Amino acid sequence: MPAVTFTVLKRDRATGARLGRLKTPHGTVETPVFMPVGTQATVKTMTPEEVAGVGAQIILANTYHLYLRPGAAIIREAGGLHNFMHWEKPILTDSGGFQVFSLADLREISDAGVTFRSHLDGSTHFMGPVESMAVQEALGADIAMAFDECVAYPASREEIEAGVERTSRWAEICLQVHRREDQAVFGIIQGGVIPELRRRSAREITALDFPGYGIGGLSVGEPKELMYSILEDLQGYLPENKPRYLMGVGSPDCLIEGVKRGVDMFDCVLPTRIARNGTVMTTYGKLVVRNADYARDFRPLDPECDCYTCRHYSRAYIRHLLKADEILGLRLTTIHNLYFLLKLMRRIRQAIASNDLEAMAADFYTKYNSGKI
Amino acid sequence: MPAVTFTVLKRDRATGARLGRLKTPHGTVETPVFMPVGTQATVKTMTPEEVAGVGAQIILANTYHLYLRPGAAIIREAGGLHNFMHWEKPILTDSGGFQVFSLADLREISDAGVTFRSHLDGSTHFMGPVESMAVQEALGADIAMAFDECVAYPASREEIEAGVERTSRWAEICLQVHRREDQAVFGIIQGGVIPELRRRSAREITALDFPGYGIGGLSVGEPKELMYSILEDLQGYLPENKPRYLMGVGSPDCLIEGVKRGVDMFDCVLPTRIARNGTVMTTYGKLVVRNADYARDFRPLDPECDCYTCRHYSRAYIRHLLKADEILGLRLTTIHNLYFLLKLMRRIRQAIASNDLEAMAADFYTKYNSGKI
Ligand SMILES: [Zn+2]
Ligand SMILES: [Zn+2]
Repeated sequence: MPAVTFTVLKRDRATGARLGRLKTPHGTVETPVFMPVGTQATVKTMTPEEVAGVGAQIILANTYHLYLRPGAAIIREAGGLHNFMHWEKPILTDSGGFQVFSLADLREISDAGVTFRSHLDGSTHFMGPVESMAVQEALGADIAMAFDECVAYPASREEIEAGVERTSRWAEICLQVHRREDQAVFGIIQGGVIPELRRRSAREITALDFPGYGIGGLSVGEPKELMYSILEDLQGYLPENKPRYLMGVGSPDCLIEGVKRGVDMFDCVLPTRIARNGTVMTTYGKLVVRNADYARDFRPLDPECDCYTCRHYSRAYIRHLLKADEILGLRLTTIHNLYFLLKLMRRIRQAIASNDLEAMAADFYTKYNSGKI
Repeated sequence: MPAVTFTVLKRDRATGARLGRLKTPHGTVETPVFMPVGTQATVKTMTPEEVAGVGAQIILANTYHLYLRPGAAIIREAGGLHNFMHWEKPILTDSGGFQVFSLADLREISDAGVTFRSHLDGSTHFMGPVESMAVQEALGADIAMAFDECVAYPASREEIEAGVERTSRWAEICLQVHRREDQAVFGIIQGGVIPELRRRSAREITALDFPGYGIGGLSVGEPKELMYSILEDLQGYLPENKPRYLMGVGSPDCLIEGVKRGVDMFDCVLPTRIARNGTVMTTYGKLVVRNADYARDFRPLDPECDCYTCRHYSRAYIRHLLKADEILGLRLTTIHNLYFLLKLMRRIRQAIASNDLEAMAADFYTKYNSGKI
């Protein structure tokens, strides 16, 4: 019995978007799902109760960050990430690959992995598929990700192809060394924005029969249309009965368009990061609540929202908190943004259930792009 | 009918410590009480629900800070501080005097008030008793404080005496100009550490018949024993049936010793400020949870504490959060410290009720000073 199983319950008639159910050792996740990011074993500013309260079913934690600090041994001794951070629902850990390639300095790539310097203290480390699996087993998430090479955008065809080959080799090693039976490993498909290389990566990775597949290397700077066309093309090359996880994507439009193209899972720091910069998503578009416009605006962030923030606080108060560098301001915008996105995902699931995704999406876009804040 | 009324319910037999009840427009407060500080219309890092959840009955907000940002007009338009910050229990605002004298630059004192420069942007402002009352009426707390001159420690007898005289004159003006019937104004007694001047200030201020009295200008650097002896001496010069508020005091020993000397109300940034620096108060003394000693310590901050933090998180996790600059770390230490102090106040009230304050205090001190963390 695999640690994680997935069932497609229904498809939206017009778009083919999938409604599904992902069973994990820490509970069941309804898909399509957005996973808030808890990089350092905390979804920034929030308690686990608040994260669950805004509707999160599963969160993502970052292997690279936790490996560097506090270190995998401490989290293992604490009884794993769930215990350490007091989060009882499912967790997915990324492989560390993306951060090693994007955050760390002085990378030297070999077929065994990557030598890099910590962005925290400059110390030298090595991580490859073997190390990534060991760290992720210590963290003990429900879902671990295979160690992959995420090539930057833009990149040459040769670079992308080398990334695809290395990602396939590493995927195989990950499966060979992984031991924990209460943890699933998902493979990752690379291939940049070259359909042929995407198909090759999909063919090679799915041949290894993982219980789920990440789609990596998108949302890294390429035009959205390009990302959408890659997703469309990929659909035919992924098994129907396995979850598809589009990594690092979290803007409302990309969530909707991703779901339309068969994606089941997403994660992104976007909602929490822009919240801390004083930008919130509302029914009628983005609102920069830090702006002076809102100094005397006593309406909630989003009059159509019923989150904790919108039920109790005004734009004027939240702006004051942000201007005064008060932590509560960051908490309130974060709560609202996550609630907003997770509610969008709920609407999406309901729309698929009632074969209504196109209409729901059209309605969302009309309001969101109206600018009538 | 005054906005705020006070009743002494009982006195501890041995010490004379007072158990009381303070009725305000926003509810009843059991004394002795510690008031958490919400300087900028927020108790740093916490929601109002959390502040109430750790046991706070009343909070303090700072007139000086709110006058500068966001400004009294915005808070008035929001319907007052209670509405603005979503706190439904009682609020006390200080007069702004202490901050004008300690935080602002370029002070020029006249008999009408103080010209000062904002510590935020250097802009010039004037505040005296008239202005302080106007701002505090706009904020709309249950209790406003008279505008006083807080002389630094140490100061010459002449400086202290001038401060006492000015404080008396300003107290009279405050009473004359104050209009709100749903807000009480407390007088403030100054006089440094000179018993004779303290008595004079007490005589002059109590002659004005305020519904409560602040004891200002203590806990500003003088030895604790000196503060205790001033409090002892003052007891005979304050009316029995009015609350006594020792301003800016919040360490466990000063709370206990203050209560023994007849104090009913306290406020201090100490528990929340040291929390954000990674220091927590526990049954067995202070613990600097940031220290490397606690990296693998999976016990709660205080094994005898049942606060939210201690029920769910380890020292190792909290240390990780603080080292990684995660806001949740500041939230968890703040919750614990406030809970700890407010529970101490509850124990003190119970001890007075059962004529047991000396024994309770001895028990507290034995453990707190044992260093058996
Ligand atoms: Zn909201
Ligand atoms: Zn505690």
